[in-house]
Amino acid sequence: MKNSLIIIMLGSDSDLPTMSPCAKVLEEFNIPYELTISSAHRSPNLTVKNVEKFHKQGVKIIIAAAGLAAHLAGVIAAHFPLPVIGVPMKGGALAGVDSLYSTVQMPPGIPVATVGIDGAKNAGLLAIQILAISDKKLEQKMLEFKKELSDDVLKKSAKIKKIGWKDYLESK
Amino acid sequence: MKNSLIIIMLGSDSDLPTMSPCAKVLEEFNIPYELTISSAHRSPNLTVKNVEKFHKQGVKIIIAAAGLAAHLAGVIAAHFPLPVIGVPMKGGALAGVDSLYSTVQMPPGIPVATVGIDGAKNAGLLAIQILAISDKKLEQKMLEFKKELSDDVLKKSAKIKKIGWKDYLESK
Amino acid sequence: MKNSLIIIMLGSDSDLPTMSPCAKVLEEFNIPYELTISSAHRSPNLTVKNVEKFHKQGVKIIIAAAGLAAHLAGVIAAHFPLPVIGVPMKGGALAGVDSLYSTVQMPPGIPVATVGIDGAKNAGLLAIQILAISDKKLEQKMLEFKKELSDDVLKKSAKIKKIGWKDYLESK
Amino acid sequence: MKNSLIIIMLGSDSDLPTMSPCAKVLEEFNIPYELTISSAHRSPNLTVKNVEKFHKQGVKIIIAAAGLAAHLAGVIAAHFPLPVIGVPMKGGALAGVDSLYSTVQMPPGIPVATVGIDGAKNAGLLAIQILAISDKKLEQKMLEFKKELSDDVLKKSAKIKKIGWKDYLESK
Amino acid sequence: MKNSLIIIMLGSDSDLPTMSPCAKVLEEFNIPYELTISSAHRSPNLTVKNVEKFHKQGVKIIIAAAGLAAHLAGVIAAHFPLPVIGVPMKGGALAGVDSLYSTVQMPPGIPVATVGIDGAKNAGLLAIQILAISDKKLEQKMLEFKKELSDDVLKKSAKIKKIGWKDYLESK
Amino acid sequence: MKNSLIIIMLGSDSDLPTMSPCAKVLEEFNIPYELTISSAHRSPNLTVKNVEKFHKQGVKIIIAAAGLAAHLAGVIAAHFPLPVIGVPMKGGALAGVDSLYSTVQMPPGIPVATVGIDGAKNAGLLAIQILAISDKKLEQKMLEFKKELSDDVLKKSAKIKKIGWKDYLESK
Amino acid sequence: MKNSLIIIMLGSDSDLPTMSPCAKVLEEFNIPYELTISSAHRSPNLTVKNVEKFHKQGVKIIIAAAGLAAHLAGVIAAHFPLPVIGVPMKGGALAGVDSLYSTVQMPPGIPVATVGIDGAKNAGLLAIQILAISDKKLEQKMLEFKKELSDDVLKKSAKIKKIGWKDYLESK
Amino acid sequence: MKNSLIIIMLGSDSDLPTMSPCAKVLEEFNIPYELTISSAHRSPNLTVKNVEKFHKQGVKIIIAAAGLAAHLAGVIAAHFPLPVIGVPMKGGALAGVDSLYSTVQMPPGIPVATVGIDGAKNAGLLAIQILAISDKKLEQKMLEFKKELSDDVLKKSAKIKKIGWKDYLESK
Repeated sequence: MKNSLIIIMLGSDSDLPTMSPCAKVLEEFNIPYELTISSAHRSPNLTVKNVEKFHKQGVKIIIAAAGLAAHLAGVIAAHFPLPVIGVPMKGGALAGVDSLYSTVQMPPGIPVATVGIDGAKNAGLLAIQILAISDKKLEQKMLEFKKELSDDVLKKSAKIKKIGWKDYLESK
Repeated sequence: MKNSLIIIMLGSDSDLPTMSPCAKVLEEFNIPYELTISSAHRSPNLTVKNVEKFHKQGVKIIIAAAGLAAHLAGVIAAHFPLPVIGVPMKGGALAGVDSLYSTVQMPPGIPVATVGIDGAKNAGLLAIQILAISDKKLEQKMLEFKKELSDDVLKKSAKIKKIGWKDYLESK
Repeated sequence: MKNSLIIIMLGSDSDLPTMSPCAKVLEEFNIPYELTISSAHRSPNLTVKNVEKFHKQGVKIIIAAAGLAAHLAGVIAAHFPLPVIGVPMKGGALAGVDSLYSTVQMPPGIPVATVGIDGAKNAGLLAIQILAISDKKLEQKMLEFKKELSDDVLKKSAKIKKIGWKDYLESK
Repeated sequence: MKNSLIIIMLGSDSDLPTMSPCAKVLEEFNIPYELTISSAHRSPNLTVKNVEKFHKQGVKIIIAAAGLAAHLAGVIAAHFPLPVIGVPMKGGALAGVDSLYSTVQMPPGIPVATVGIDGAKNAGLLAIQILAISDKKLEQKMLEFKKELSDDVLKKSAKIKKIGWKDYLESK
Repeated sequence: MKNSLIIIMLGSDSDLPTMSPCAKVLEEFNIPYELTISSAHRSPNLTVKNVEKFHKQGVKIIIAAAGLAAHLAGVIAAHFPLPVIGVPMKGGALAGVDSLYSTVQMPPGIPVATVGIDGAKNAGLLAIQILAISDKKLEQKMLEFKKELSDDVLKKSAKIKKIGWKDYLESK
Repeated sequence: MKNSLIIIMLGSDSDLPTMSPCAKVLEEFNIPYELTISSAHRSPNLTVKNVEKFHKQGVKIIIAAAGLAAHLAGVIAAHFPLPVIGVPMKGGALAGVDSLYSTVQMPPGIPVATVGIDGAKNAGLLAIQILAISDKKLEQKMLEFKKELSDDVLKKSAKIKKIGWKDYLESK
Repeated sequence: MKNSLIIIMLGSDSDLPTMSPCAKVLEEFNIPYELTISSAHRSPNLTVKNVEKFHKQGVKIIIAAAGLAAHLAGVIAAHFPLPVIGVPMKGGALAGVDSLYSTVQMPPGIPVATVGIDGAKNAGLLAIQILAISDKKLEQKMLEFKKELSDDVLKKSAKIKKIGWKDYLESK
Repeated sequence: MKNSLIIIMLGSDSDLPTMSPCAKVLEEFNIPYELTISSAHRSPNLTVKNVEKFHKQGVKIIIAAAGLAAHLAGVIAAHFPLPVIGVPMKGGALAGVDSLYSTVQMPPGIPVATVGIDGAKNAGLLAIQILAISDKKLEQKMLEFKKELSDDVLKKSAKIKKIGWKDYLESK
């Protein structure tokens, strides 16, 4: 078993359904990762201890998902010298505006690479792009992934041209 | 010198001018306090170490002021079992909406007693009210403070009745 | 029967389901409390009369829950010299942004200790933390509560490590 | 001296410069009014006492101006059976969104007639329109006022047609 | 049949379910009114013609309900010299923030008395309070209505005291 | 088959149900159009190639629908010298505020004619109005369309007058 | 003198400085236009009369600029069968969010082609693009304009490459 | 001269003053970079051509700064398989909320690593952290940088302890 390069850390297990596309995309790209749960507020010492442990083990990137006053990514970034990716979760009355602001508006010195609200898949893809800067095969795979995205649009575009939007709408 | 009952912790020394009314009101009520600087992001270990030290020294309340993705109050609250008061700072493009949401929208289990944006004086008064629950003299002082607030309005009200709003406006 | 130390005041009985976790956490900590209904707008005299009565009876903290243009906490704070905790309710078109701003943005002189939107449990915990500043046993209980929060995360973290996130997701 | 029909109540004397157009427009329409200062939070008993006194004296409308968590209009409306006009003030980090929401989002049963942020003149005009429902002369004056508004636009429109927008811009 | 004193004008018949409490409260107070549909955008000439007709017939107040870019109240206010009450409707992606701003933020000279989003009942009550400034019986009824509001809170308060909040919650 | 004058370009086929009223209104006015799918982000080269192809084929207007960080209309406008109409889609945590801002706030030099969130029908009508500036028959049809809008309101207004709002509400 | 094809209508002469780039860009493209002032609220009859007059005179597009609860574009669109371009103005406490929502969120049936807040130049350019659908020379000019935009970027890009960003910064 | 690893691309030269701390921090860490100007809207072909050129030259990361409807980072990300960092600029009526949403809310498949509004320095630091995943010396430097941040706080903290906050405030 290879060492994990990427950690997905959830502030709460209630974030797991939303974050599973992040893990899935890492698996599709064959990236060794680990998914764990640790809260910035409820288990602060565990969080810091984990971050230090992961750093020693050679982890390259930590992806942190949290909602509400989402401090998890920022707290990790305070202790980790490599990239931290923050994923604001949608839950609660403010529908994720609170977690977005809490994640992205970091003070000078401690960046968090923030993706969109509930942007689980993009967090995984961003992590892969980061690894790809020193891994030509991974970069190649990313180019293929981008081509598939484009081909998928082309296919849909061709289908809608062929059968018309009304049949397309019914066929979905 | 008496032990500090209250700590005012600033995320940055740029918050000092805005937060000085907090220290002043504590002095007016003769509350022993200490004002210190520690960042949740730039000096995370110092912050935690300080919180633990203050707790052992008998500090009763920590007032935390921070701007942007304001994690300071939440980080302190994760480690401190007594009341933490959060003061969102106004600075930055979002004018304090970010720090308000980052401070007040804490997950269940870890409350932060949040006052208004730049609400330095109210943070101090809230801390005094908290101490007053077990200090009858302080409660009495708080009642007098409230009476002064009311008397001040009465005086202004009487003056505006006497000289009219136009002269009042000029006399300001 | 012991005198109530804490009052939970609801602006409307429609707030009761959301606020019940506040009462429950006070019971878990064995804090004598009373839950009552009184509106800042529909029964203003009752509200003021109640606040004065509670003050005389030795109540230490009032927790006020209200939605929309949530004035209840502010009105109570105008009459009560000890801590008032405000809980903004989520209901209505603005999903609680209105009640949050109406509760937290108090003018200098009259603080309200505001928790997050629908933050019922945190309001109760904050009240307990306030009582704990002069009650070592309660502080001890709060430390245990925080430890339980942390242990709960540890358990989940261990489980997810053991069975993997896919089985964890299905087991929920 | 005639009895005041309208009261302008300011939450703070800092609102006076912004609110003076309200008083001025009442004078232009010869409406007997009184301008006073009373805070919902700092002088709550004075506020209620004043509202009851004004009601007994035959006051028909109260105009309330307040900023931040602007409770003044709502508190007055809780005690006054006739129209209360609320004017949200702009001050503070949230630029009046807080005072707008705190003023307009009243619960069912207790309306506040809200005008725009810093809408001092419109508050006065609305009060006049309310008096005009039972005062034909006042209604006539209001029609003339509206005609003047329209004539003023016509004049500007004619001038811009005559001299062109470039000279108009310079002539301002 | 008495002449209508109040018109409820809906921008769309889809607003009818939300606005029916407005009509009902006018009926409870025995106020002659008419409910009609006219759009500022789809039937602009009808709207203006109606406003002028209503004015001639002695209508005292127009209540306008509209959603999205809610121009109806403002358009009516441009043509009507007496009070116009605006009710922002909640529908659409912005949940009524758009209609609130479109209704309340009127330029100097043309006020709209705005109530909260979906504030149908309050619009009716405000209209009644306006009529009450020259109708002592109506003022008396409004005082009774306010007393009922207060009594209703008192009853609920007494019930919750008697049976406890847990039974109260189940009894709802 | 006539050349398409208008292209409806969707950023994703998930936008099709919301955008179908756009296509339908073009059909009602007998405007030759084509509906296609192309993403600014997933198929950027296809998008640009299509825009250039459509321009050569004599397309007059492109309607672009996209959600989230909606760049499609702006990207098209960068390459197309004729009118581009942007339709912000509602999907996602921010309910379309993100797509509205991403579509409408274009820098000087590159306008996008933006309609409301999910404003599919209005996008089609705006395109028809644009074509109508050089097509008198189309302008005539648009005048008839506007008359139908008005007649529809008149009919509803007459019905509500005849049967009363209570029966109207039930008849819906 | 040629008939105006485009009208720029300002809700207030205070909008003139912000809107002058709109007139200027029309002049650069040699489009006959007229700039006039008319308010939806203060001079509603003039506005409607003007719109009908402009329509008869062969005006093709009306550009409407207004702030706050910006109804001008919507009111014009209710009466005009050809394109109406709305320009939300920034003034007031809400910094143009109110005018943006009031302009863009039009109900189905009555579109307004909205540009960004204070987007005067883009309003002019959009009007030109609309005229260009039936004017090949104008389309050609628009292509040249777009090329100039691009060339200007190229020039700056070359300069910054040549002298470096530090000298570039000082040279500005 | 070494090949640039990082490109800073500005949507406009008006972003240069705000973005200069990004270039400076790259220089402090001795990272070869190039700063260039290219607009997603005004020079779309140049932008794409540049991205492809930079990719071939071995550039690892592109940092994109843009304001308003900030599409630059997204457009680059559509063409570039390695990390794109987006920096929302503050300018304009919406103070950067528009550029934040336009940058961060990317659809699944095309991530942009977003930093806070005007977060120039953090964009540079994030780029360095990304390079550091495969450059131990750089990681070491980043750890030293973080230690300096912490030491700076310690020094300020010591100074404020020594001279007191009042003298500290004056000494600034």
